[in-house]
Amino acid sequence: MDNILNIRTEHMKELPERYRATFFNSLSGFKSLALIGTKNADGISNIGVFNSIVHVGANPPLLGMIFRPETVRRHTLENILAHEYYTINHIHHNMLPMAHQASAKFDDDISEFDACNFNEEYSPSGMAPYIRESSVKMMMKYRMHMPIPLNGTIFLIGEIVEVIIPSSYVQEDGFVDLHKAGTLTVSGLDAYFSTEFIDRYAYARPGINPQSIFHRSEQSS
Amino acid sequence: MDNILNIRTEHMKELPERYRATFFNSLSGFKSLALIGTKNADGISNIGVFNSIVHVGANPPLLGMIFRPETVRRHTLENILAHEYYTINHIHHNMLPMAHQASAKFDDDISEFDACNFNEEYSPSGMAPYIRESSVKMMMKYRMHMPIPLNGTIFLIGEIVEVIIPSSYVQEDGFVDLHKAGTLTVSGLDAYFSTEFIDRYAYARPGINPQSIFHRSEQSS
Repeated sequence: MDNILNIRTEHMKELPERYRATFFNSLSGFKSLALIGTKNADGISNIGVFNSIVHVGANPPLLGMIFRPETVRRHTLENILAHEYYTINHIHHNMLPMAHQASAKFDDDISEFDACNFNEEYSPSGMAPYIRESSVKMMMKYRMHMPIPLNGTIFLIGEIVEVIIPSSYVQEDGFVDLHKAGTLTVSGLDAYFSTEFIDRYAYARPGINPQSIFHRSEQSS
Repeated sequence: MDNILNIRTEHMKELPERYRATFFNSLSGFKSLALIGTKNADGISNIGVFNSIVHVGANPPLLGMIFRPETVRRHTLENILAHEYYTINHIHHNMLPMAHQASAKFDDDISEFDACNFNEEYSPSGMAPYIRESSVKMMMKYRMHMPIPLNGTIFLIGEIVEVIIPSSYVQEDGFVDLHKAGTLTVSGLDAYFSTEFIDRYAYARPGINPQSIFHRSEQSS
């Protein structure tokens, strides 16, 4: 019989800082994983690895993300606030391990594109650099940010103003097949996973058993 | 050669509403997936399906989540604001398809526990119901919420005050092995995925190639 841990606030306070950070970063569930592309005031390109991107709304299309306190390097936040535009680029299996390397604290005058062997790509929709190696990517325009007084983090929201994606990943109802795209997910700060499709279900209604919509959409594609 | 779509704001505005919702909900990446357990003023238990949980901090341990505008049923939010406590319960493969069914709009006097065949479980740490079928779960205490004026959504933050988890899922550095736990991830509102482990990497440092820490942690366990 497996031992069941019951960890309450008083126990949490006694955990060593690093253990605590690793535990809570991985406890919350699988997370989105993306590289954020920006440019600084000197024109040097920056890449940041983010796992806190959250869907805020579809109309207008808004995504939020959490920035950690001032005590850590925050080139990405500074660049977004200065230039408004940033890119969100999905991470695929063939971008590892260099996508993880982009989380290292490089000096200000070094571009993570060079250090991690990624290539910049531009579109007329914004001045932020896309990552060519990513096959699903978005140009974002800054909309607002809110400080979180509980711990000094910042919740920043941007609007999707451009999406670049192969048509074969988009099903006829608009569903983006991230598994087909090879988009990865992350647990904690350093554990990378690919996915296995289980099922898609129709909109749930009381009293009606969940209906798979997988076969229908396969047949129609 | 695959056709690459370039979708800009002017195209997005022309998309049919349902296509647009499906597209943007699935575009942002794989998401955390959990059932939120609450109780209403009449003592009726409620389950909500959420895919917007985001890590806000480890000290204190904080998780945020997005609630959609007032126009949709929001029992979960009302219950949290009234009673402070709520539970976050991971969703595993054997909880499908009923975990999806919990997203149906049941009448106020019906408990999703009964309607979806989940069992309630309680601990002394809070009045909110845990879901027995989930093997990784947390008691949350409400801390704050912030309206997002851009679209009327609400960003709510709670503190983890209790964690219930089998010890075999927690590695010696504190890393929670969600793959071993069978925790699922979701894309969009209705597509469920399990995961395949790729690798864990050591903390990244400039000039040093990413080092796998998978074998080390396997050997030490």
